[in-house]
Amino acid sequence: MATIDPAERWWSEHEVPPGPAAPRGAYLPVVVQGEFAYVSGQLPLREGKLLVEGLVDEEVGMPEAQAAARQCALNALAALRAEIGSLSRVRHLLRVGVYVASSPRFTAQPRVANGASELFQEVLGERGQHSRVALGAGRLPLNTPVEVELVAAVTARPAP
Amino acid sequence: MATIDPAERWWSEHEVPPGPAAPRGAYLPVVVQGEFAYVSGQLPLREGKLLVEGLVDEEVGMPEAQAAARQCALNALAALRAEIGSLSRVRHLLRVGVYVASSPRFTAQPRVANGASELFQEVLGERGQHSRVALGAGRLPLNTPVEVELVAAVTARPAP
Amino acid sequence: MATIDPAERWWSEHEVPPGPAAPRGAYLPVVVQGEFAYVSGQLPLREGKLLVEGLVDEEVGMPEAQAAARQCALNALAALRAEIGSLSRVRHLLRVGVYVASSPRFTAQPRVANGASELFQEVLGERGQHSRVALGAGRLPLNTPVEVELVAAVTARPAP
Repeated sequence: MATIDPAERWWSEHEVPPGPAAPRGAYLPVVVQGEFAYVSGQLPLREGKLLVEGLVDEEVGMPEAQAAARQCALNALAALRAEIGSLSRVRHLLRVGVYVASSPRFTAQPRVANGASELFQEVLGERGQHSRVALGAGRLPLNTPVEVELVAAVTARPAP
Repeated sequence: MATIDPAERWWSEHEVPPGPAAPRGAYLPVVVQGEFAYVSGQLPLREGKLLVEGLVDEEVGMPEAQAAARQCALNALAALRAEIGSLSRVRHLLRVGVYVASSPRFTAQPRVANGASELFQEVLGERGQHSRVALGAGRLPLNTPVEVELVAAVTARPAP
Repeated sequence: MATIDPAERWWSEHEVPPGPAAPRGAYLPVVVQGEFAYVSGQLPLREGKLLVEGLVDEEVGMPEAQAAARQCALNALAALRAEIGSLSRVRHLLRVGVYVASSPRFTAQPRVANGASELFQEVLGERGQHSRVALGAGRLPLNTPVEVELVAAVTARPAP
């Protein structure tokens, strides 16, 4: 009897995006090269709309910013899963970039970024641990408060 | 009869930079490790001068910003080609980072970034597709409106 | 008689951080996948405190900003060394990201970034050369003036 991958079980038991959001430009959601998968910067879109808009600390509070980071992370996994077929093929996350549209005084980007980091570990367990860079930006695309990108290690596609 | 790589043909038929711009600091234009090539952040320099300067949406309009992004992408390919000898060795682009010096209200960074993305696909075709992150920054080095960095998959150097 | 790796000798002869700073969130200081090591964004912490705080060019001058970048780079190597056991396993640096909290007029991010680039080459020699992206950001985590992240090529762990 096949064991269900815990990340795949998490995915089946939660309300998750049906697949990758359409890229907002002339690029791909995910590119895989050997054991490395590069996932494009993700916005906190749900059903095609941003959860929230604006600068964190000025127009968006901490709980909303963290929820937006979590949604970005979920969308990153949805894009990755659509490309590689199953989260069971995720060996380990490698690098997570979290970019926070910040007011001129805001310096708590790591707290916002934890919204993404914790989702990755909730879904993938130990495999969801990662290195991270969290930066303050000015306005971001579509006026999103957060954008998350991902590099992951994946296993080779299993023989059919 | 050897077939000319389409990207090399594009290169020979267009006015392109003679080679990599000198780095503006203590770093290399490109580092190759195995199948991965890392290209340093590129500015829209042509003959040693920025095409345009300033914040997009405040001092630089959309067409100029897109042209600048295109020039950055061209310079990234010139740097990569100088390092690996021929664009025929580019297997696929992996990650493109586009950083846009943005006015406090500007949120159309993906449209600017398309200037780079479209050049990559014009030169490399399907191999030029990539994952992407587009961010809004404040002022950038030398007051450039755009900076583009690149990670690419390359093939091993052919035996002599 | 075993030769001492020059980078390890440098390390033994200088006052260096005892190990990685504790991550400021739910992530790891370093993740290694095959020959690639991803080091999280580093702040200019020494004994748990930022060397200096604020926006470069407004609250922080160039020499202090360069010293901060140097400390970030030292902390990145300390984190990497703690993970892989010895700097002798560093084959080559690949990508260095330097993010500078910048005043609205500041455009000399490459000069700040040289503080990090030069430290890498001082410790690692030719192996410390790297590709680089230097960006201007707004406020950064904890109000640091600089943040540095790193991707490095490492050799496989030697057999015991």
